[in-house]
Amino acid sequence: MKKYSVFSFLLLVFFSNAQTIQSPSKQISLNFALSEGKPTYSVTYKNKPVILKSFMGLKLKGTPDLDTNFRIDSISQKKVNETWQPVLGEQSNIKNSYTEMIVALSQTINSRKINIIFRVFDEGVAFRYEFPKQANLNYFIVSDEKSEFNLAGDHKTFWLPGDFDSQEYPYMETKLSEVSTDKINLNNGIGLKSINGKYVIQSPLMMKSTDGLYINIFEAAVVNYPVMHLDLVPNEFKLTSHLVPNAIGDKAYLQTPCVSPWRTIMVSDDARDIVSSKMILNLNEPCKIEDTSWIKPMKYVGVWWEMHVGKSTWDYAGSQNAQNVLTKDLIASGKHGATTANTKRYIDFAAKNGFDGVLVEGWNVGWEDWFGNWKEEVFDFTTPYPDFDLKEVNDYAKSKGIKMIMHHETSGSVANYERHLDRALELMKKYGYPAAKSGYVGRIIPRGEFHDGQTMVNHFNYVARRFADYKLMVNSHESSRPTGYSRTYPNYIAAEAARGNEFNAWSNGNPPMHETILPFTRLLGGPMDYTPGIFEVKMNIYDKTKTAQVHTTLAKQLALYLTMYSPLQMAADLPENYEKYPDAFQFIKDVAVDWQDSKYLEAEPGDYLTVARKDKKSENWFLGAITDENPRSTEIKLDFLSPNKKYKAIIYQDGKTAHWEKNPISYEIKTMTVTSKSKLKLVLAAGGGTAISFMPIN
Amino acid sequence: MKKYSVFSFLLLVFFSNAQTIQSPSKQISLNFALSEGKPTYSVTYKNKPVILKSFMGLKLKGTPDLDTNFRIDSISQKKVNETWQPVLGEQSNIKNSYTEMIVALSQTINSRKINIIFRVFDEGVAFRYEFPKQANLNYFIVSDEKSEFNLAGDHKTFWLPGDFDSQEYPYMETKLSEVSTDKINLNNGIGLKSINGKYVIQSPLMMKSTDGLYINIFEAAVVNYPVMHLDLVPNEFKLTSHLVPNAIGDKAYLQTPCVSPWRTIMVSDDARDIVSSKMILNLNEPCKIEDTSWIKPMKYVGVWWEMHVGKSTWDYAGSQNAQNVLTKDLIASGKHGATTANTKRYIDFAAKNGFDGVLVEGWNVGWEDWFGNWKEEVFDFTTPYPDFDLKEVNDYAKSKGIKMIMHHETSGSVANYERHLDRALELMKKYGYPAAKSGYVGRIIPRGEFHDGQTMVNHFNYVARRFADYKLMVNSHESSRPTGYSRTYPNYIAAEAARGNEFNAWSNGNPPMHETILPFTRLLGGPMDYTPGIFEVKMNIYDKTKTAQVHTTLAKQLALYLTMYSPLQMAADLPENYEKYPDAFQFIKDVAVDWQDSKYLEAEPGDYLTVARKDKKSENWFLGAITDENPRSTEIKLDFLSPNKKYKAIIYQDGKTAHWEKNPISYEIKTMTVTSKSKLKLVLAAGGGTAISFMPIN
Repeated sequence: MKKYSVFSFLLLVFFSNAQTIQSPSKQISLNFALSEGKPTYSVTYKNKPVILKSFMGLKLKGTPDLDTNFRIDSISQKKVNETWQPVLGEQSNIKNSYTEMIVALSQTINSRKINIIFRVFDEGVAFRYEFPKQANLNYFIVSDEKSEFNLAGDHKTFWLPGDFDSQEYPYMETKLSEVSTDKINLNNGIGLKSINGKYVIQSPLMMKSTDGLYINIFEAAVVNYPVMHLDLVPNEFKLTSHLVPNAIGDKAYLQTPCVSPWRTIMVSDDARDIVSSKMILNLNEPCKIEDTSWIKPMKYVGVWWEMHVGKSTWDYAGSQNAQNVLTKDLIASGKHGATTANTKRYIDFAAKNGFDGVLVEGWNVGWEDWFGNWKEEVFDFTTPYPDFDLKEVNDYAKSKGIKMIMHHETSGSVANYERHLDRALELMKKYGYPAAKSGYVGRIIPRGEFHDGQTMVNHFNYVARRFADYKLMVNSHESSRPTGYSRTYPNYIAAEAARGNEFNAWSNGNPPMHETILPFTRLLGGPMDYTPGIFEVKMNIYDKTKTAQVHTTLAKQLALYLTMYSPLQMAADLPENYEKYPDAFQFIKDVAVDWQDSKYLEAEPGDYLTVARKDKKSENWFLGAITDENPRSTEIKLDFLSPNKKYKAIIYQDGKTAHWEKNPISYEIKTMTVTSKSKLKLVLAAGGGTAISFMPIN
Repeated sequence: MKKYSVFSFLLLVFFSNAQTIQSPSKQISLNFALSEGKPTYSVTYKNKPVILKSFMGLKLKGTPDLDTNFRIDSISQKKVNETWQPVLGEQSNIKNSYTEMIVALSQTINSRKINIIFRVFDEGVAFRYEFPKQANLNYFIVSDEKSEFNLAGDHKTFWLPGDFDSQEYPYMETKLSEVSTDKINLNNGIGLKSINGKYVIQSPLMMKSTDGLYINIFEAAVVNYPVMHLDLVPNEFKLTSHLVPNAIGDKAYLQTPCVSPWRTIMVSDDARDIVSSKMILNLNEPCKIEDTSWIKPMKYVGVWWEMHVGKSTWDYAGSQNAQNVLTKDLIASGKHGATTANTKRYIDFAAKNGFDGVLVEGWNVGWEDWFGNWKEEVFDFTTPYPDFDLKEVNDYAKSKGIKMIMHHETSGSVANYERHLDRALELMKKYGYPAAKSGYVGRIIPRGEFHDGQTMVNHFNYVARRFADYKLMVNSHESSRPTGYSRTYPNYIAAEAARGNEFNAWSNGNPPMHETILPFTRLLGGPMDYTPGIFEVKMNIYDKTKTAQVHTTLAKQLALYLTMYSPLQMAADLPENYEKYPDAFQFIKDVAVDWQDSKYLEAEPGDYLTVARKDKKSENWFLGAITDENPRSTEIKLDFLSPNKKYKAIIYQDGKTAHWEKNPISYEIKTMTVTSKSKLKLVLAAGGGTAISFMPIN
């Protein structure tokens, strides 16, 4: 069932150089104006300025720029109101309602045409450049895009440095005028850093104005185009698009007809409107996969955390000494994690506890010399270590009803991965793997390219399409951050592309506020494989000298299964750790990963988030509430539950003395009967959280 | 049968900083000396200086250079004398005889070690750098190689500009002191030019000294390393290696243990020693393919020259207008060459005349918009045009005993080709193609890379290996020029990598001396797919306005089947043209392409070449003689023929008034009976040639 309505009308405005449109709710207004031949726009929300007059346009290489000398040929508008169904998602039906304005421009000097397409939704504005097919513009090279975002004040902002190779930073929280990448603690566990200036920052950029507006600047549908970072003029509160260059400094190679990605500005006085927005998905192309029956949500465990905590190693020989050694000459260290026997142990655990899959990293030869040296031929993606029997593992998994998840670490050597990709996918089909996790740790090959350049954007999208050809799902780590392509290729089931839970195992980690920001930034573009579920929060249980720890309570780790939306969710801790806390583990076993509906009950970026979600396949609801470093008490209404139904609520909450640092594992479990008329008081410890399951009582 | 002998001895020279070795014949001496910690070498031939004291070494990025502060740790020598059998070649047995000296050096400052390996053959000298595995040198980046070749005089030289993307220039013939790339006529039909300075020239570089020494500077076994061009200081006659950079200016990424390619200096007072040398092959690794039974020589025709002369087009829609058009929207122009029907005509012709194969270019979608715009996704290598039926064509060919040759034009978009390569090779296997011709017209993607950089060298070698995995042969066009890798992967059956016959169809063409130089340069590294056999020499038969022409007589086109060695030889002209000259065509039908033995009878670079070859499978001999723009008379002894045997000699020679420009098609055919004691007078027209077949009379 697809509801769809379009009201379209053409405005002929030959004598006007400006035009305004409004969101369906009328609360957002967008004005377009041509200012001395230059396109500009501005945005207000409830009559408050959000974006002051800002210029738009592109610089081209070797040919006149597309940023001035324009005249308006026509302006047309239409209204769209439709609903579509994602294959996997936070809700079964997604509403896509907006007013669209297309401004057709041509240059007075050479008659070249571009269209600027604006869409105004209830929670924000989007625009893109469209380059129609035309005689005077066929192939062209974008040397710069100059899309401005002139903000109206010195907003509080949660920012990451404009690193073209990584988004794996903890967020900085400052005013716009105080942004400076010099302030970043670089001893943060990130192996490859490519920070590009003092005032270059990343999008998505979440902000809050002093008068209570939540503003987010991001982009959608980054396809055949580089990632947009942002140049900031701190004292002017002015942002300008900063496209990621390729090896020789060019930004994008395009041919008409084509479009740029959407530039998005979300705004609301209610933070829940931002965090629950589906604007980014709505701005992407509908699903291009006809038969999606093989795309399935998945809860999984994996041979993975044990390497992060140092219990075992990815490599067979245990050296990682970056020396050329032939596989036949490797000597087993005895610490290899991805052995057939150890994998069977995880399979047994997964089967016993109702998981869908088991990920195994370090199964293939190459880990002795894989990282940090810009090596091209690292992995072949098909040759297992001598102690990992592909057939035996997969046969065993099959006999237990478990799916194996393949792992493809590219080490950034994308040329090598693309060369081997078909062989790798053939191998997956041969053994029945439904999905792979890919990795892009390290400098990119082709050398000179960045993770965020057009070449790599195209690579990540190509991989999603190629996996789809084979009816396989992919979960990329260290990729560029998603901008909604999972709507078009829902087999691109998740991505990391932000600072994940793993940093807590061996670096200064993720501060308690980290998970309260990600839903306002990274998650707007698509599901994140954050890998929650760490029960043994302090790494000193593995080695007394370790000081690293997860910066949450155990209960908050449970709540993350709700607040960090993904249809692919890991239970990241070791089986033996879960077995120590079977009552808390029950929540991970119970929680769904694909949803009929989601209700964001409370939200404040950097502070807290509470969300309730209804399982797609049952009447069960689940709730997750998290807080930052501050303890929090709140009362929530359960009016999202179906009326006239009784539910058994199992509440997993922080213990009375719980504290992310001082007493993180302390938790309590309460069971009660509730209805849609009930209220619940939630008490969250510093760095804590609450997770609740609601199951109807027949 | 492999003969092999090694005499090895170690010289300990702790108190000597210099050492000399000689060729087996004693005519070449090579001296190595450490000069204030810097390695140097010099070469003499029959006591005449060939290379004056020249420095050696490498510049590294971000770490001390490897060009000074050395001490000698040891010097060892050995003599090698072996014979090996190429899978395909100019002779059944190749002798590999040399004296080797390994100079082990270490740096006084940091104990890093390199070895310089010298080999002295009877026809020249080779050296390479070896980087042993060691604690202080693991990964490193070569930012420059400084191997000098200080020549002893102002030699005559046949040079090409140091273009990192093309060797498809006609040769310039000047003294070293007169070299300047400013002298090149750039209106030469080359689409993509990347000339890198006034005094940067290509290797192989063929020279002749005033006192009659033939000197050639080249390289062998370019594997995981960029191509070496040469920086010239014209008045000092000094050449220095100039490695081709990658997109960000680096030259080579290496990891110990590893080696550089060999730098070669051939020298003789008899030009035949150069042109017949197997030194470059000898310096490559032995064949790495175990079962070579599927590697077979091939004589072929193709749907190809008709596009060059404008009779038909590569593209289906006939526009080549570089516009985005969906394949389904293409409208047939009616001029498409690669139709099923036209292909069957070539198959019929091939079968009737005893050819092995038929090449078809333009069979796959993409040719409407393939060239000159740095487009990434051009071809998919698997989708035929609607008028080319893969199954029907291949079934028909099979019924006639003909093999189809696939065509893979990459348009320089190597990233795209590598992505599709496995699919392309699967398609070839599906339909039974034994070989493909590949093409690399245009700027390389990954952008910023050159045809001659390490990335592309690795690509070409990778493609050869990947074809070998599928038991397929490859013939690359517009690749970097070969340096003997076909010894290691003999399925890399031929390459173009120089100015081929095609330039005669639509540009200022190849001057008459062109083919007398290529055997001294390009062909030293491996077989060239020059595509000889053009009978209709003047293009005005296709269109009266055309002035282009092949710069040879018809008889010389026949002789090229001998002088331009390749186990893959095309009869490039149109079937209908061959049918006009059936008596001359008989030579192409008769001539062999794989050889028991080859005898270079006469040779002078830039002037003339005469070679006789014995068919590998029979007692037949064939002879080819060519001259430059000057007519030539000569008498040759037939003492290469088996004694006590009578042969029927069919002589295809220039007509009495033949002249490459004024009367190119004029030829005469004589038949006579000869023995090994006979002498034959050959009379070659300006730009002419003679071809002879010798068949034993039972």
